[in-house]
Amino acid sequence: MHQLIPIKRALLSVSDKTGIVELATALQQIGCEIISTGGTRKKLEDAGIATTEISTVTGNPEAFGGRMKTISFNIESALLFDREKDADEAAALNIKAIDLVVCNLYPFQKVLEKGADFDTLIENIDIGGPTMIRAAAKNFKYVATVTQPQDYTALIQQLEENNGALSQDFRQQLMCKAFNHTADYDALIATTMDKSIGVHSMRMGFGQGVALRYGENAHQSAHFYKQNGEDNTLYDLNVLHGKALSFNNILDINGALEAIKEAKRPACSVIKHSNPCGLCEGDKQADLLRLAWAGDPISAFGSIIAFNRKLDLETVQFFALDHPDRSQRKFVEVVIAPSFAPDALAYLQQHKNLRIIEFDINQLKNGQDVRYLNGGLLVQDADLKLHDKMDLVSTKQVDLTLEQPLIEFGLRAIKTIKSNSIAIVRFKEGYAQLLGMGAGQPNRLIATKLSIEKSRENLQNEFTGDAADFEAYVADELSKSWLISDAFFPFADNVEIAAAAGIRKIVQPGGSIRDKSVIAACDKLGLAMVFTGIRHFKH
Amino acid sequence: MHQLIPIKRALLSVSDKTGIVELATALQQIGCEIISTGGTRKKLEDAGIATTEISTVTGNPEAFGGRMKTISFNIESALLFDREKDADEAAALNIKAIDLVVCNLYPFQKVLEKGADFDTLIENIDIGGPTMIRAAAKNFKYVATVTQPQDYTALIQQLEENNGALSQDFRQQLMCKAFNHTADYDALIATTMDKSIGVHSMRMGFGQGVALRYGENAHQSAHFYKQNGEDNTLYDLNVLHGKALSFNNILDINGALEAIKEAKRPACSVIKHSNPCGLCEGDKQADLLRLAWAGDPISAFGSIIAFNRKLDLETVQFFALDHPDRSQRKFVEVVIAPSFAPDALAYLQQHKNLRIIEFDINQLKNGQDVRYLNGGLLVQDADLKLHDKMDLVSTKQVDLTLEQPLIEFGLRAIKTIKSNSIAIVRFKEGYAQLLGMGAGQPNRLIATKLSIEKSRENLQNEFTGDAADFEAYVADELSKSWLISDAFFPFADNVEIAAAAGIRKIVQPGGSIRDKSVIAACDKLGLAMVFTGIRHFKH
Repeated sequence: MHQLIPIKRALLSVSDKTGIVELATALQQIGCEIISTGGTRKKLEDAGIATTEISTVTGNPEAFGGRMKTISFNIESALLFDREKDADEAAALNIKAIDLVVCNLYPFQKVLEKGADFDTLIENIDIGGPTMIRAAAKNFKYVATVTQPQDYTALIQQLEENNGALSQDFRQQLMCKAFNHTADYDALIATTMDKSIGVHSMRMGFGQGVALRYGENAHQSAHFYKQNGEDNTLYDLNVLHGKALSFNNILDINGALEAIKEAKRPACSVIKHSNPCGLCEGDKQADLLRLAWAGDPISAFGSIIAFNRKLDLETVQFFALDHPDRSQRKFVEVVIAPSFAPDALAYLQQHKNLRIIEFDINQLKNGQDVRYLNGGLLVQDADLKLHDKMDLVSTKQVDLTLEQPLIEFGLRAIKTIKSNSIAIVRFKEGYAQLLGMGAGQPNRLIATKLSIEKSRENLQNEFTGDAADFEAYVADELSKSWLISDAFFPFADNVEIAAAAGIRKIVQPGGSIRDKSVIAACDKLGLAMVFTGIRHFKH
Repeated sequence: MHQLIPIKRALLSVSDKTGIVELATALQQIGCEIISTGGTRKKLEDAGIATTEISTVTGNPEAFGGRMKTISFNIESALLFDREKDADEAAALNIKAIDLVVCNLYPFQKVLEKGADFDTLIENIDIGGPTMIRAAAKNFKYVATVTQPQDYTALIQQLEENNGALSQDFRQQLMCKAFNHTADYDALIATTMDKSIGVHSMRMGFGQGVALRYGENAHQSAHFYKQNGEDNTLYDLNVLHGKALSFNNILDINGALEAIKEAKRPACSVIKHSNPCGLCEGDKQADLLRLAWAGDPISAFGSIIAFNRKLDLETVQFFALDHPDRSQRKFVEVVIAPSFAPDALAYLQQHKNLRIIEFDINQLKNGQDVRYLNGGLLVQDADLKLHDKMDLVSTKQVDLTLEQPLIEFGLRAIKTIKSNSIAIVRFKEGYAQLLGMGAGQPNRLIATKLSIEKSRENLQNEFTGDAADFEAYVADELSKSWLISDAFFPFADNVEIAAAAGIRKIVQPGGSIRDKSVIAACDKLGLAMVFTGIRHFKH
């Protein structure tokens, strides 16, 4: 399997001419004959590199405005014949082996992205190129196929190391790249052509798959892949330290990044089982973590925590990883930030198992939301619109100019919490904080109750006064908070429960046939209510 | 765009010879010259159809064990030249147009599925076929390309309707199919070859996309696709009646089917926001619906309901769609069943907006679980293993032979409820019923509390005795129920809360470092506890 094939004769025909002169120069130096076509040949000849005109090999002219250049019995035979079994036949037919094909294809994707018309797209469907590439790749036992300029350096290096020959391993790797290249090419052509007849189709390719230790549970096997041709994907996490990421870690990391990706200010999210149980936006990172953690200090243990700014030492000291009393150390599974101050990184690295991940959330694309369901595929735009309006529908008035930043924080929170969901948010020390939330409930009323209970728990945790004053404290804090609903209230009962708990301000999309009775309940109980016109279901 | 092209000269070269004689006969009848190769030619000649041997067109012999048959300047020129612009050049080169290519490819997929060795796989990579197909497809303005026997009937019909010619529309449709065919072909080759060098890659193609009214929310646009080459996908729902399915309907339908797909007996699931809030397995369908509905009679309004058996009239009358008091009618969004008795269907059709869906859940494949996360892709085996063991770890003994069916029902339930989750299940009138559940909580303790509260609510709904006797009734019913946890209890607090509520039997995977103290709590409180060894997280 390591049989070396000397590269004596190469065919160069490229659309993207990056690096082609350097490659041809290297081939010339090992005494390789270079067959070439049209523009590629001109570029090489201009650089003083002697080439064989392809028509002298094909025996045919270039024809039909360039549609026919390489396809011929002679070229594809030279690529395809078995150097052992077919040697005599090739000699009899006067076919001389070609050992290397360097070819990339008409830039269909580029012209498509430039908005080319249909006829231009059709002209940019390469026929000869894929034929050569596929023929050479099929015969990789003897032939090398290079389809991308970024592989020229490795090719030149291999040729140098092996005295002008290429190994079987290298040729097999190149073969795989070649078929991936033609698969990508025809995938894009197929979906583009489908669109021309009004058919919606979708093709996705994923590579670089790594086996995970297991899936969502230990009895499920799993892999993690990266989408071909995309940068800054969730796959491109840079794990600086710690155990390998698990399936659930990766799911939660995605949730943690989604929860802060639209924050304009520094932000911190705390994720448990895909839901943010803590979320905070504000100025100082150490406060962000403390206040996000306070959103659910029980669940925060073992959570996934993400930041959208460089992480500093003061912040990570919150985890108390060096506390002499082990029970005081705050163990989390994963910490993600765009970068780490060296002392912050060193501090976190004290915990052997903690996964420390560098990922710049600002690079994460607002891509499509794709759900695979037993062979069906749901694809939708990401939920990126916070609100359509800010209609104060209650008699009770509030200053929306002052309140809007907190409401918008609440909407960013609610759209990443699983439905039915209710969030209670407040300003605390100048920070926008998720005080309590209820997630994933069939019944909205229960989500409301959960968010209130969690808020009360958290207020109890921070309350330092006399027990007798606690209810007054709750009433005061909740009266300044906003209760945010991901979807409209179907009945007034949610308002009544919220009001009884001390909530005075509610945000919801509106749009129920019973909006009037819901607003009437607010008016009766003296609550402010804002309609946004935008629902934020998330499942 | 409707320009008709007469089919005077066709090239037939197929691996799958289904229907090829019938097609060639039709071509012969319109006076079309048939060029053919190897096995295809033999088959046609044997059927008495005159063909032109391809080598007389290529000017070359078939060579290298069949690796070179069609690829030639003459064939691809005949497919590719522009019938207008290039007419003179073609005449000068003595190239005569080929108007139709009928070609399917070496059966790479078939030999792969048969477990062929690597060399056989390589031999089954078709080079000449894709070249012809792609050349003809590129020039669809003049040439028709047929890649699948199932298109022969339409082809013959079109030829008959148009006096031996094909329309531009038809050629363009065939062109799209052709590029989809070569895209599928190279996709499978690429992933298979990647595997040969230890690289994990994955490619998926989806077609038949339909635009949904909107996505998860009204401001998100969305499409629904079907995976290419797969049958019985979630896309293959047969909507018998009602409004078009929404994005959220489709998500919930998947959840509804997942919740009952492994039931051996008749079953019914009630889904709200992706979670089963009602689930029942037993004999009689009408009872199943009544008992599933009772799992959360508030949330069941507007839910998605699935059955795994033919639906009968008695069952659907439960919805009371003809009740004179509109408030007594039980409105649901979707009803799914493998089939419907005509009177049951007619009854359901009284509700104009109700989506009625025919889908045989038994045909749903236990496929892979695929999650797309911002350009990363997590792929895992479906969660199909209920338990690894049934270890009674408590001092308190129960008869597991008797209890196992209910425990297994509980495990089927818990693995479709979002984590952290707790389910309380019981036998009621001989039916296994989800009495109450807690879903989607960061904190397991809250899931436990939710499941108990919901169970108490439901017991209250069914209780007909004196109020003073209610707690005794709860204690009795809960003592016969099992509480099922999707993951281990990290502390004994869950046991204490369950015991205080009246639960006497608990199932959990086990595996916590504090298992001993959890078991000790069971022993202290007199509870039975079973360890299964299998966690069922679902996110």
